[in-house]
Amino acid sequence: MMKNKKNIAVIGSTGSIGTQTLEIIKENKDVFNVLVLSANKNSDLLIKQSIMFLPKYVVVTDEESYKKVVFGLKKHEIKVLFGESGLCEVVSLKEVDVVLMAIVGFAGLLPTVFALKNKKKVALANKECLVVGGHIIKKIQKDFGGEIIPVDSEHSAIFQCLRGEKKSSIKKIILTASGGPFRGFELKDLQKVSLEKALKHPNWSMGKKITIDSATLMNKALEIIEAKWLFGLNANEIDFIVHPQSIVHSFVEFKDSSIIAQMGVPSMKLPIHYALFFPERKLSSFVSFDFAKNPFMSFEKINTDVFVSLKRVYEVMEKGGNFPCVFNSANESAVDLFLNKKIKFLDIYKIIDLCLENINFVANPSIEDLIKTDFEVKNFLKNFK
Amino acid sequence: MMKNKKNIAVIGSTGSIGTQTLEIIKENKDVFNVLVLSANKNSDLLIKQSIMFLPKYVVVTDEESYKKVVFGLKKHEIKVLFGESGLCEVVSLKEVDVVLMAIVGFAGLLPTVFALKNKKKVALANKECLVVGGHIIKKIQKDFGGEIIPVDSEHSAIFQCLRGEKKSSIKKIILTASGGPFRGFELKDLQKVSLEKALKHPNWSMGKKITIDSATLMNKALEIIEAKWLFGLNANEIDFIVHPQSIVHSFVEFKDSSIIAQMGVPSMKLPIHYALFFPERKLSSFVSFDFAKNPFMSFEKINTDVFVSLKRVYEVMEKGGNFPCVFNSANESAVDLFLNKKIKFLDIYKIIDLCLENINFVANPSIEDLIKTDFEVKNFLKNFK
Repeated sequence: MMKNKKNIAVIGSTGSIGTQTLEIIKENKDVFNVLVLSANKNSDLLIKQSIMFLPKYVVVTDEESYKKVVFGLKKHEIKVLFGESGLCEVVSLKEVDVVLMAIVGFAGLLPTVFALKNKKKVALANKECLVVGGHIIKKIQKDFGGEIIPVDSEHSAIFQCLRGEKKSSIKKIILTASGGPFRGFELKDLQKVSLEKALKHPNWSMGKKITIDSATLMNKALEIIEAKWLFGLNANEIDFIVHPQSIVHSFVEFKDSSIIAQMGVPSMKLPIHYALFFPERKLSSFVSFDFAKNPFMSFEKINTDVFVSLKRVYEVMEKGGNFPCVFNSANESAVDLFLNKKIKFLDIYKIIDLCLENINFVANPSIEDLIKTDFEVKNFLKNFK
Repeated sequence: MMKNKKNIAVIGSTGSIGTQTLEIIKENKDVFNVLVLSANKNSDLLIKQSIMFLPKYVVVTDEESYKKVVFGLKKHEIKVLFGESGLCEVVSLKEVDVVLMAIVGFAGLLPTVFALKNKKKVALANKECLVVGGHIIKKIQKDFGGEIIPVDSEHSAIFQCLRGEKKSSIKKIILTASGGPFRGFELKDLQKVSLEKALKHPNWSMGKKITIDSATLMNKALEIIEAKWLFGLNANEIDFIVHPQSIVHSFVEFKDSSIIAQMGVPSMKLPIHYALFFPERKLSSFVSFDFAKNPFMSFEKINTDVFVSLKRVYEVMEKGGNFPCVFNSANESAVDLFLNKKIKFLDIYKIIDLCLENINFVANPSIEDLIKTDFEVKNFLKNFK
């Protein structure tokens, strides 16, 4: 009955990417089967999703929520696993065809490593695992042969633009940035912005963490590191530009000066759909972008003296080692503090710089070193609470 | 010495495309060798080009000019051939690797047929051969295996967007049009436009015929038929939109609603470069498009009640047979009359409609039928002079 269907493990199924993934799977039940669902704390939604999709496995990483889910699914024949070890176990299952990795943050690293070691096709929406451990991920891909299909809209765009092209033909890639809610702001304007305003993204409907990252442009900074690893580029081959309408999802300029761009209605469903069906392009129910109804596109340079994240990222890439990990972990903690109204908006940048100045440098970090660095950063920042 | 170099036959070397092709070849002397040059009437430039590139063959199609070229090149070991038969001979030569077909108008049909029958790679800048004889060209390609690389900027764009993609993945293609010098004009405005204004194209520097075709939008209409044959599409899969900045050279929308576009500085050199080097993308000397310096792009619907060419073309495609040939030949004659100030701008449309109403319909025309149709149209329009 389930023959020929692709078995999908949706890791992080209750978040924004996870729920949209499940909507696409629901519309394509003849092609996909949900084998695994996982969540951190949102037990209610995970239970609801599990009863609807009847996966073989469910993983919960938060202990309290785990107990709720075990109770909520006791009448169903669903194995409920716990924690990071549970995640690593399910992504390694022989039956899994595609791992949709939609966990937010550093927590995505280990499960992604396990999925790739087991030669899985990973539809990767977690950028942090490449940001902090790109050198490890690429080595594992090389040694074991797993495949990464990017789900981030910008990286999906680049990935699509590179179909049928050689890496050696690339002059540079240009990531587009909406500019976020504070596009065009000066430093003095940023000093007084509120959490509420930072959470109002003009184009994209996303989770809270990534919405703040869009406001600080840290999201773009992390995407630059992500792109470096995904496409094997040097830092000077990665550029960015603000494009407030978010219609062009990114560009590739080739050595002959020809530019290929991928565009569409700003919705994460398109890159998710693309990654799930790759290498096929299948008919979607998404509306076509209508140029006549959306007749203007604009592009702007960004002031990296204001949005310093986009200056710092190139220094972090040059330094390498565990610095991208520090950069990312410090940001995670800082955003958490900002979301809890413990710090101001611009403090996010200050905290990141403080960590880059204070955390020990490790030149060629192992996964253990990265976990240690992440811990070190979070420990260092406890003083802020 | 010339081993491993690609031998190029530049058919129509004194026109806009031809001269730009020679500039690219000059910059890439280690890769390309000019084996053939050809022109119609511009004997002075042809002689100059021949002395510079020392091709093995030169073809002249105008009799008076032929004599001048024979005289001008008498000191050189260059074979000077005459007429259409000369063209058909040189494009069939075993030594020719790539035929850059840059003759304007219906005259491109026969040499293109000969090139494809001899399995040549044809870098095709002549759209008329596909417009009038698409069904014949495609059959020859199927039977003999020659390859067409489009040089028209829009079709090169589509061709580039389709790299690594399946034809069955296409939802539609969208050709961009600058809108020409009379973009946004109403019928009453078009009634009084002068030849001089029609010859002032806002973005592209091209020959006179194609510049007038841009003003009437006949160029876009012919490109729609060209695209139908080049990419094997149905009429309803080909759309168009006005994009005054001419940065996006065309779009492909796929069935998943993802759009891929090709962009760049508006210059014919890029598609010529692409076609000559295809399937490689080689470093060019062309400037990169700078989004920060050209921050706006816009898109507009076009009023096909004013620019009726874009309405008529779909009727012509539906009818098929020799109608595209009538459509094209009538336009050629009408533009000629307009360039000689014999008729007004809007008379171009009237003449085309008159021909479509009066010329005999042939359902599945042979090359001979098309030549006859072309003759019939031109004969019919003699009364206008």
